Parts: sequence; structure tokens; C-alpha cells
Amino acid sequence: MKTKVGILGATGYTGVVLTRLLMNHPEVEITYLSSEQFTDKYYYEVYPMFYDLLKEKCRPVNAADVGYRCDLVFFATPNGFAKDFLPKLIKENNDIKIIDLSADFRLETILALNKSKKQKNLKITYGLPEIHRAQIQTSQFISNPGCYPTSIILGLLPALKHKLINTNTIIIDSKSGASGAGKQLKPELHFCEVNESFSPYNLAGKHRHIPEIEKELSTISGENIKVVFSPHLLPISRGILSTIYAELNNTKINQKEISKLYSDFYKKEFFVKVLPEGTYANTRNVRYTNFCHLSPLKDERTNKLIIVSAIDNMVKGASGQAIQNMNIILSLKEQLGLDTLGQIP
Amino acid sequence: MKTKVGILGATGYTGVVLTRLLMNHPEVEITYLSSEQFTDKYYYEVYPMFYDLLKEKCRPVNAADVGYRCDLVFFATPNGFAKDFLPKLIKENNDIKIIDLSADFRLETILALNKSKKQKNLKITYGLPEIHRAQIQTSQFISNPGCYPTSIILGLLPALKHKLINTNTIIIDSKSGASGAGKQLKPELHFCEVNESFSPYNLAGKHRHIPEIEKELSTISGENIKVVFSPHLLPISRGILSTIYAELNNTKINQKEISKLYSDFYKKEFFVKVLPEGTYANTRNVRYTNFCHLSPLKDERTNKLIIVSAIDNMVKGASGQAIQNMNIILSLKEQLGLDTLGQIP
Amino acid sequence: MKTKVGILGATGYTGVVLTRLLMNHPEVEITYLSSEQFTDKYYYEVYPMFYDLLKEKCRPVNAADVGYRCDLVFFATPNGFAKDFLPKLIKENNDIKIIDLSADFRLETILALNKSKKQKNLKITYGLPEIHRAQIQTSQFISNPGCYPTSIILGLLPALKHKLINTNTIIIDSKSGASGAGKQLKPELHFCEVNESFSPYNLAGKHRHIPEIEKELSTISGENIKVVFSPHLLPISRGILSTIYAELNNTKINQKEISKLYSDFYKKEFFVKVLPEGTYANTRNVRYTNFCHLSPLKDERTNKLIIVSAIDNMVKGASGQAIQNMNIILSLKEQLGLDTLGQIP
Amino acid sequence: MKTKVGILGATGYTGVVLTRLLMNHPEVEITYLSSEQFTDKYYYEVYPMFYDLLKEKCRPVNAADVGYRCDLVFFATPNGFAKDFLPKLIKENNDIKIIDLSADFRLETILALNKSKKQKNLKITYGLPEIHRAQIQTSQFISNPGCYPTSIILGLLPALKHKLINTNTIIIDSKSGASGAGKQLKPELHFCEVNESFSPYNLAGKHRHIPEIEKELSTISGENIKVVFSPHLLPISRGILSTIYAELNNTKINQKEISKLYSDFYKKEFFVKVLPEGTYANTRNVRYTNFCHLSPLKDERTNKLIIVSAIDNMVKGASGQAIQNMNIILSLKEQLGLDTLGQIP
Repeated sequence: MKTKVGILGATGYTGVVLTRLLMNHPEVEITYLSSEQFTDKYYYEVYPMFYDLLKEKCRPVNAADVGYRCDLVFFATPNGFAKDFLPKLIKENNDIKIIDLSADFRLETILALNKSKKQKNLKITYGLPEIHRAQIQTSQFISNPGCYPTSIILGLLPALKHKLINTNTIIIDSKSGASGAGKQLKPELHFCEVNESFSPYNLAGKHRHIPEIEKELSTISGENIKVVFSPHLLPISRGILSTIYAELNNTKINQKEISKLYSDFYKKEFFVKVLPEGTYANTRNVRYTNFCHLSPLKDERTNKLIIVSAIDNMVKGASGQAIQNMNIILSLKEQLGLDTLGQIP
Repeated sequence: MKTKVGILGATGYTGVVLTRLLMNHPEVEITYLSSEQFTDKYYYEVYPMFYDLLKEKCRPVNAADVGYRCDLVFFATPNGFAKDFLPKLIKENNDIKIIDLSADFRLETILALNKSKKQKNLKITYGLPEIHRAQIQTSQFISNPGCYPTSIILGLLPALKHKLINTNTIIIDSKSGASGAGKQLKPELHFCEVNESFSPYNLAGKHRHIPEIEKELSTISGENIKVVFSPHLLPISRGILSTIYAELNNTKINQKEISKLYSDFYKKEFFVKVLPEGTYANTRNVRYTNFCHLSPLKDERTNKLIIVSAIDNMVKGASGQAIQNMNIILSLKEQLGLDTLGQIP
Repeated sequence: MKTKVGILGATGYTGVVLTRLLMNHPEVEITYLSSEQFTDKYYYEVYPMFYDLLKEKCRPVNAADVGYRCDLVFFATPNGFAKDFLPKLIKENNDIKIIDLSADFRLETILALNKSKKQKNLKITYGLPEIHRAQIQTSQFISNPGCYPTSIILGLLPALKHKLINTNTIIIDSKSGASGAGKQLKPELHFCEVNESFSPYNLAGKHRHIPEIEKELSTISGENIKVVFSPHLLPISRGILSTIYAELNNTKINQKEISKLYSDFYKKEFFVKVLPEGTYANTRNVRYTNFCHLSPLKDERTNKLIIVSAIDNMVKGASGQAIQNMNIILSLKEQLGLDTLGQIP
Repeated sequence: MKTKVGILGATGYTGVVLTRLLMNHPEVEITYLSSEQFTDKYYYEVYPMFYDLLKEKCRPVNAADVGYRCDLVFFATPNGFAKDFLPKLIKENNDIKIIDLSADFRLETILALNKSKKQKNLKITYGLPEIHRAQIQTSQFISNPGCYPTSIILGLLPALKHKLINTNTIIIDSKSGASGAGKQLKPELHFCEVNESFSPYNLAGKHRHIPEIEKELSTISGENIKVVFSPHLLPISRGILSTIYAELNNTKINQKEISKLYSDFYKKEFFVKVLPEGTYANTRNVRYTNFCHLSPLKDERTNKLIIVSAIDNMVKGASGQAIQNMNIILSLKEQLGLDTLGQIP
């Protein structure tokens, strides 16, 4: 029997990507699509791409209803919603599985819930499967990683595990497509403002993803890592590319060894591909897929490690990774329902 | 047992879309990928999107080899190739099925082949399933329609069949994304020339698709139709939108009746969707899919029928339709291996 | 002494283009920049392009203040503002010259103003210099044409004046960049909605520019003209291209004669260029300039006249034409302060 | 009397930008436009933007002719041309002034020319006015800087002069629009390859601009500087943004002091603007202008200096700076003929 899944915030950008992927997923059935803004509209009225393919209407968010109709629910909702809604939902359905795509719980590991009869402590698992797969398998509640952090952590993981780099020297220059900012109307997201421009924002320690990045990197390395993180806005719809710099601890290690070390590290990870030397990761080759493409490079002249990490911010950076997490929780094949081929041209 | 398929010209844009779709197709196995330019390179060296997913190398084109290795072959080759290669291929494999995406045979219905022992006449079927499905089923050789003609013919078909319009008044204003021009290097396809511009080309009867459009429209209507056809180049990668105008024969017919007539006409055609009133067809909602979205509208003030027809030029306008044709020939479900959901945002 | 000019609505898109052009204009001095949203902010805080070049602050709109500080004022304000504000302003400064870029008065020719002592009737001139230059010269109040109407009227003017076409057969297929919709936040103008798409809107007689187009065309031709007008949204920031179709009255006229007729007609108009045969008007070649490029073509096969008309919607379609009108009113050289060379690449 | 100027390679992208700017320049007259590819074509046939505005034809390159017709000549030619052509030209016109936009002489300071009667040593000046203005004034031959180097050197200059940073820690992450690669046809510049993608290239010490960058930075600082330089290709036509990182020598210096130091340093430089705190440099605000916008930032958490430097690669990065150099050589006002306002939206 198929798992009944709900998507809260189904008409936002992460919501529509979830909806699309879950419709193609053989082991689930969508039983709840919520949208405050479009309540009672047909989903295809909001996104005509679904016309004649999906007959569901958008529902309001109702904890009892969600709890009753769903075995598993995705929160594709604005930051703040999950913190408020989660206790109500658990009260209605004590066993419901939750994958939260918002930032609400990414820095926490335990959620204490007051319930009428007993106190329940819900363990929160940070849903980066390449690191936390085992915990995810047994989790009820997943906090899905941010898009920038996913690209960065996957890029640095082998280097940190192998003590390849001086952890005091990490500089991350990231570039994201406009969908990363969501569907809300903001002056800086008007077509004419993004088009034909390229802009940095929240530089010098101001981006809200920094604590998430540093927490995970520090846990991985066992050191207290601080990073320089510079996000930039790209005039494209989909994609993040992070160019990451750090000093190599060992000046002797050569390009071939670095490539091998990275390839070996991710040998068993289907969704992380270390590209062959001579091919650089870019956003287009991962667009619409759940892949992370990595190019680890040695800059011989300066003894730096440069790692280029590319993901689709909406897939591996959000909705695709959420489904990867769902597959793990449900003991399904990890890549079920996830596209492995993007679109060229 | 899976059908063995080959793609000649596999590294061009229609070739890569075919390769991608056929890799996802459950009933075929790719046994031949040819590329003159990239012979002996791994396919993923040309398109790193396929890295670690497709291990094939590009082969040269060799009739004996193709004939031996393939049950069915797609010609995703430049115009001129098929005319030359087809007789050689038939000689090697008398039963091989062929779907030709080039323009070589779109205006012909019979190909006379001189063979050593006997004369063979190969019937050529114009592969627009919504019109010629029955003939396609029994064909060995399909000439796959052009991208503009597909969008236009599907848009006008119900109106012509129902004698809705004055066939002397058809004006077609079409707009195509840049992939329609293929992957070859041309000055007008340089990024900086296409970007932030919008340009008409081959106006006033000069486009090579006109004979194909007029031949099919005339056959459908039983009249000798001449059309005004104005193509324009859009600064997008994928998509064709044709805005088609014609005088209504009957001034009394209203919008509701026109909508119903179109909807009824295409009721059984999965890949043609007549959108509900109030929603206009656009290129984004069909992107990456094999759908044709139609919006038939009455302009009350001028008694004109306006039909907006949108397809993805690379899918329903080329490679997707080719696979639809293949499915019909192989007696498979028509939508097998074809995406039904595009990508938003 | 320089003319003192004000711009109301200076932080919208037509406002910023006016500001930029007027800063480069040798005979005017900007004395008033209003913005409700950004009152008291430095203009360069809204548009950092002006940093260290323009020291003005945004002011609130105040009739007395505007009337006192300005000899001439541009209304780059939302539709509705001018109707309300104009009487107040005239009361404060009986002689102030006004160029209204909104649609408020485009369909009217007389504005009756009640004033304390006497009734004043303000003549409203439709500011298309190529048609109404003489009246503009002596006008106090100019209603600046819409962007679509400008491209269309200039394209059809020679054909109508020379009775070249059947006026019952005019079909206009227009495509506009996103700046035409202004700077306000609307869901359909989010970068991810416009990018990589192409969409029709307000088809079949629904666009608010139709009365303006038909009024002018009817006046020019002396006939009661109704047109089919189909606007589409292009994923570019600047530019309108209208492809206009009509039946030729005389089947004998050939391409050469049509080209000559158009060239002769606009021989003395600096801002309208009839391109040589073989070169089609496109949006890029007029971008950032006040030019209208025209390509009149005969479709021999169908006896249609096809006119391609390209302008920059923000310049000849709005702010540039407003300055052209100002130059005429002020008896300055018509092209003063207007760029004649765009930007390639 | 106006200076007679020639442009060799006038139909390439730097050539067309030079042509456009020089047409608007009050003190020069264009007397020579060369193009091998388009010899004998009217310039407006190559670029219809110039139709009816520039009547010149493209000429072949002929040293005698160039020497005879020009007082000053711009080489907007491919790398390699200048090395070969320069001696021939000097032989024809011993006094002709030359501004070379190619990379041929950027790393050299003396050109030894064998001449029939005497040996002439031509001093080569690196044409970055903000550093070498005095030498430029008296130079006959200017080697115009590369686009990336211009953005980087201007960004680092105040920090190096003030010994603000550890010169062993410089990391430069640069992003350039597609016009930087010129107009030649290359597979990676096809619209469909650049559009909707973002790609690094020539990473880890492979870009040919590195020696130019390091030579100038080393000269400025008096130290032997090696940098990490990572170029990336942006899907826009115009603009370079470099995000530059280095360790601060002094942890005590605060943001305010850094901002002041930068502002003071460039106080007299019209074409370099240090933006106020809170506004970041981006490519759009400098597009089409000769400005360099700088945002120097302190990352308090990591004690890094981050400098964002934005230019238009075709203007301050090439043709605009060439004209700035010409103005200096000709003792004209430095900003003559150069646009100071770009285009919004």
C-alpha cells in the first residue's frame, strides 16, 4: 500500500518541486496539498503545467486533517511555521513522519513537546543522507538542510575527514539562482532587477545559513570552524555553485591523489559525483537532478585546495533531498522517484 | 526482449534529447550512438550530465554496423544525410525501422530504392500521430514533423476539420527558442546576439517549413491553403509558441462553443491539452514535455479565431514526438518513456 | 537659462529613464524628483547607479511645491494620478507645461478645469511627434502615447496615408519586454516566472491599449478601424516588436515600391528608420534609443503587407518620446539629450 | 582640429564599443575602420544599430593607409596581431599613437624596433590611468589592461598601498559576462550553452591573465605576489564582478576605517566609486559605464578583508579605458566621450 503524503505550502517553489517529484514516485500517494493563498483553487489553476494531470484542490492547513490523512508530511512552508505547527500535528497523529524543509529546526537536535499525558522528546535529525543516513533511517522528524549548506558541506566533507586542509582558512564563494529566494514578491526579485545582473548580498558574516554551515563542519572535523561565506545572486532560475578555498595541510599531495581521495570517499554515494579531471562542475549539468557534482582541484602555485560544488538548489538543495530522506525513512531505494538526468539544451 | 535502438547524430541537440529520453524508456536499449565530430569519445565527455550514468562511446556512422546492431534507428542528423544514407542502411538491414528527424523526406510519400534483386518502394509516413496514427502503426519509415509545423498543424486541425475558418485568411506568427536552430556554430546564435533581443527572420514566405505546413493543412482541409508564416527568435533555450489568426466562417459561434469543439476534438489525445478559458498556453508550461497546449479564442470585435499553440520544440517538436512514433510502431503505450511533467520554476 | 523640470514618480521605471536622460540634457535642470515610496531618501539609495552623480533627494508630491519649482513637469506616475493632480497643479502654476506619461488622458482632447475666477479649457495633445508635431509645439499639456500604440501607429502610418491596405484586415502581434509592466511587484513579474518563458496575455480584445490604437488609426485613415491586437511577454528587460499584418489593396505594388514609399514617408523623421531590404527590425538594434526601426515587407504569396516595427518601450515607447515632446515644446532641437546609439553587445 | 582615429578590428565586440564611444566623442573623427571579415561592407550592414548614423565602410588592414589616415589608432584585434603589425605601422608613421587592447604587450615595457636608419625603442606603458597616469600622458604606445586585471588591481590597490593585507593570502573569485570571450564562434558560447548556466573555467592557475595580475600587484606592493584566481562565466552579456579575499594584517582596523581609507584613496579618481556601506557593488550599476564600483568589507568573524569590485568588462575593462587613455594622451578631459550613466532597467 502506498504511503500517504502531504505537502504543506504546496504552491511555493519547494512545494511545487515536491509535488512534481511525488507525482512521479511509485510508492507514495499525495493526499494533502495545502496553500493558504490559493485555498480551494485547483492546483492546476496555480500551475497550469499540471492541467489534466493532477485533479487535487489546495486545502487550508488543518492539523487534525493533516494528521488524519497523511502518514508523512513535508513542510515546504515559510520559516516560523514549523515551530508553531509541529506540536499541534504530533498531538493529532503521534506517529506521523515529518520532513521540514524550513530552517526552523536546523540548529537543534531535540524538540521537547508538552503533551497532555506524557512528555515526548522528538529527536531532530539533520537530513544530509551522505552524513547522517543511519540516524535518518530511524527518525520521525527530519530537518532538511539548506541549499547553500548542502553544496558546501558535501564539498568539504572528504577534505575535513582526511584532515587535508587548515580549517582556519576556509573561504566559500557561493552563487545561487533566483528560485533560492522563494516565490514571495520582493523588489530585488523583479525580473528586471535580476536579469542581466550579478550581485553579492549578505556578505561578511551576515547570511543566516552560516550557523548551519559552521555547526555541521565543526561536528565533522571536531574543530571549531569559522568560515567566510559570500553569497551572490545569479540571473538563472535554478542552481547553486560554490567555489570553496582552503589551504592544504600537506604541500606534497598532488592533484591525482586529491582526485582519488574524493572519488573514493564518495564511491558509494549515488548522488555525489566527483567529476574526472578536466571537467568542471557547473550548474547546468546538475539542473533538475538530485546530484551534487564536485571538482576538487589543487592550485599548485599557492598550495590551496579549490573545490567546486554544484547542485540544483531546488532538488539536492531542497525538495529532492527531502524525498531522498523520505525514501530512507520508508526503507525504499534511495533514488526512487528522483530524476537522474537533467535537461540539455 | 528490449528493442535495440540507435541514434545517429547523437551529440546534436535533438540527439541528446533522444538519448536522455531513451535511457529512461523501459522497453528499449541504446545500442548505437553515432557522432562524427566526437567519434571515440565517451558520450559523457561531450555531455557531462551523463557522467557515471551512460558508459557508451560515440561511434562513427557505418551502415553495416548500424544495420547489424539496431532494430530501430533515429536519424538526428543534418538535412541531407538521410537521403544519402537510407538506401545503404536498407540494403544492410531490410527490416530496420527508421524515424528520420531531418527534413529530407517530409514532403514525399514514397521512396524508391534500387536494390540488387528487387525494387523496393518504401512508404514514407509523416509522423504526426494525432493525424496519421493508423499509418504510423504499420510503417517502417517515419518522417518526423518539423517543430513549427507540429505546433501549427495541431493548432489548426480542429478548426479545419470543422470548417470553422476561411482558409484564405490564415496568418501564423511563431516564436521559437534558440535550440530550434541546432547546435552548429552560427554568428546569430552567439550568446550575446540572442540574449536580450527578439528578432524575426525568414519573413514573407522565405522559411523552409512553409511547404510542409501548407501540404499538411491542404490535405486536412481538402483545399489549397497558402499561409502567412512569420518566425521569430526568442532568447530562451526551449519552446515554440505560435499565435494563429483566421477569419471565422460563422459569426454566430461563441467562445464557449469554440472551446468545447476544440476540447471534444482532442478528448482522446493525451498529448494535446486544450486549456480552460482564462488560461493561455505559454512555452514554460509545456517545457520538457511532449504536450501541446492550445488556447482557441474568439475575438468578438473582429470575428477572428485566434489559436495559441505551445510546444517544446525539442520534445513534441522533435525528439519526444519521434519516441511517440516509436512507441506506436512498437505497439507500446504511446506515452512510455515520455515526461508528462515539466519543470517549475 | 535652463528650463526647470520635475519628474513625479521618479523612482518607477519610466521615472528613472527620464531622470537619466534629463541629467544628460544640456538645456534643462532637474528641480524636482518625487517618490512616495522613497520620500527623503537620496535618489542614489534607490538606484546606486547614480551614486556620486546625482545628489537629489526624493520629495513627496506637493502641488504648490511642484508648481513653484518647475517650468515643466513629467508625470511618470501610475494611471489615475494625473486626473486627480492636474487641476491642483494648474491652480498653483497656470503656465506650467505638463507631459503625462500615464494613460489618463490619451483618449481625450479637452480637459475642462474649474478655476475660481474663470473656466479654463486645457487642450490635450496626443504626443506622437511624427503625426502631431505642429500641435505639440503650441501645447501646454501633452498626453504621451503608450508603448504598444507608438510601435503600431508608426508602423501603419505610411500604409494608411497611402491607402495601401484593407483597413478591415489589420492583425497586430506584439511582443514586449518586462519593463513595460512597470516596477510594481506582481506574481507574474517574478524573475523565475518571466525567465525562460514566453506568454501571451490579454488576448482577443482585452488589452487596455486597444482604444488608443484604434482611435489614432481611425483618425489617420478617416475610417472606423478595428484591429486584432495580441500582446505577449518577452523574457527581456527592454523592447517591443510588433509584427503587423494587413491585406494589400493593390496586388501589383511590389517590394521595391513599398520600401520606397515607406522610406520617402519618413525621410525627414530622424527617429524613424526604414531599414534596407534584407535587414529586419529587431529589439536589440533600437534598445536604449529613441528610434523606431521599420521593415515593411510584401508577402507575394498571400498579398499581405507585413510590417515589423521595433522600439525600446522605455524610450520611444515612453520617456524618450516624452523628452522629444519636451524639446518640441521648448523649441529645442528635437533630438537633444536623446541617445542615438544603443549598446552592442 | 579633431584627432583622426582608426579602429583596427572594428567589427569585434571591443571594436564596436570603441566605434560607438568615438562617434559620441567631440574631439575625434573616425577615419579608419578595419575588418578582415567584412571588408568593403558598410559598417551598418554588420551592426544595423548604426544604420543612417555611420556611413563608413569596413576597410582591409593596410599599414601605409592606416599610418597616413590616422593620428591615433586602436588595436581591437586578436592576440598576436599587434606584435606583427606594430613595426610595419611605425615605419609608415613614426609618430602615430597606438592603444593596443590585445594582450600582446601587457607583460613588456620596451619594444625594440629595427628601422632602416636608426634603432628606435618604443616605451610601452600599461594603461591603467589610476596607477600610471603620468607615464600615459607622455606615451606613444599604450598597452590597455585586461578586463579581469582591471577589476582586481583597482580593488586591491588601496589595500596594498596601505599594507592592509597579508599578500600571501589573496584569493580572487571572478565572474564575467559572455562578451569577455569575444565574438568568435566557440561551442561554449552558443546561446543554449551559456543560458541558464554558471560555469567556472581555467581554475587553479590556468588563466592567461594571472601573470598580468601578479606583475602589477607585485609592482604596487613591492612584494612577490602570487594569487589564487578563479574565473567563472556568467549568463549575462556585460559585466565583471570580482570578489577578493585577503587576511587583514591588523585585526584592530574596523569597517569604518576601511571604508574611509578606500574612499580617501580614490577621492580624486572620477571613475572609481567606493560605495557607501550597506550598498554592494554589482554588475548592473556599472553596466555601459567606465566606472569601477568598489565595496571593501571587513569580515569581523574571520579577520578577512573582502573587496567586491564591479566593472563593465567592455568599458572600463576594455574600450572605455582605452578612450580614457586616449583622452590622457591627447590632454583632453579624462571623461570626455565616456558615458557616466548606465541603463536601468
